[in-house]
Amino acid sequence: MSYNLAPLQNLIDQFERMQGIGHKTAQRMAFYVLGLSDSEAEQFANAIMDAHTKIKQCKVCCDLADGDLCPICKADNRDKSVICVVEDPRDVAAIERTHEYKGLYHVLHGAISPMDNIGPDQIRIKELIARLSDGEVEEVIMATNPTVEGEATAMYISRLLKPMGITVSRLAYGVPVGADLEYADEVTLSRALDGRSLL
Amino acid sequence: MSYNLAPLQNLIDQFERMQGIGHKTAQRMAFYVLGLSDSEAEQFANAIMDAHTKIKQCKVCCDLADGDLCPICKADNRDKSVICVVEDPRDVAAIERTHEYKGLYHVLHGAISPMDNIGPDQIRIKELIARLSDGEVEEVIMATNPTVEGEATAMYISRLLKPMGITVSRLAYGVPVGADLEYADEVTLSRALDGRSLL
Repeated sequence: MSYNLAPLQNLIDQFERMQGIGHKTAQRMAFYVLGLSDSEAEQFANAIMDAHTKIKQCKVCCDLADGDLCPICKADNRDKSVICVVEDPRDVAAIERTHEYKGLYHVLHGAISPMDNIGPDQIRIKELIARLSDGEVEEVIMATNPTVEGEATAMYISRLLKPMGITVSRLAYGVPVGADLEYADEVTLSRALDGRSLL
Repeated sequence: MSYNLAPLQNLIDQFERMQGIGHKTAQRMAFYVLGLSDSEAEQFANAIMDAHTKIKQCKVCCDLADGDLCPICKADNRDKSVICVVEDPRDVAAIERTHEYKGLYHVLHGAISPMDNIGPDQIRIKELIARLSDGEVEEVIMATNPTVEGEATAMYISRLLKPMGITVSRLAYGVPVGADLEYADEVTLSRALDGRSLL
């Protein structure tokens, strides 16, 4: 239903525009805002503007950054000979959570998808190639999503990089740790068989 | 996980403070904001401030209003002899959706709940009594929630109003339309039996 109060309805509409937020949730969120104190509401509105104006793309890896460089490109303790290529800034966060990877990243901001009119020029492949010209990078790990688009993007980039003498690797496919074999899909299971290792 | 970027983390925290919004959803919402254009982000931030500063309480019924009076109190075509008492502005919206009720409302903004230190003075009961002094109102329908608190509030108010010669009624209890008797709880079912009507 719609409210007769324009400012309230407008706010509900704003929340509802977000992916995964239905009408009821948007309504609850708008009422949450009405219940805030003046200063809290101002902080909330400022947080939106702040995030929007202050967060830019890192000039090197295209990850999110609040300055010219992102915290990872700025850090001294990262291995500059490896670059992990991901589709999205959230993927960087996911890999960082493992605390296993010490190299650099490159964020493509998408994957090649002819269906959606996204070709190699629409994602940050040129920027990746530019980073490889100085010869410091020895390996590029393709960590694009295990989807058709992510796969195609990984293949495309690996074909560009191999002639440059750079090792290109891909994340392993297999059954997720803790999952039940019974519920693994056939493709994943056959990839897990292909990729089996000796004990 | 937390991001190293303060403006982003701050925005995620703001979203996460809302009831029913978990960390993953808050993160997705923050990334949605980053993906907005400059003007869209500004509209979003303004919608929050607008809703917060422009929406006040109606001076008569305590419902939400963007001026001194809410649209229902301002309307000429409502039956001014009946007041429906609800706990929350959302309840007004719910009853309006039925298109059945043509009277006025009174929003208590809560219910009496000694457990949460909410007594009769913390909700808008005084304002309701004040509206009844001119003798124009003939019936007050208690539409507080069918909970212990809502029930206690309805009882409390009805005892105040009956000596004033005003008819006080309560929403009917019963099985919800479309529900399955098998799954109705015992209390609801016994109330439905008590309130049975002749065919």
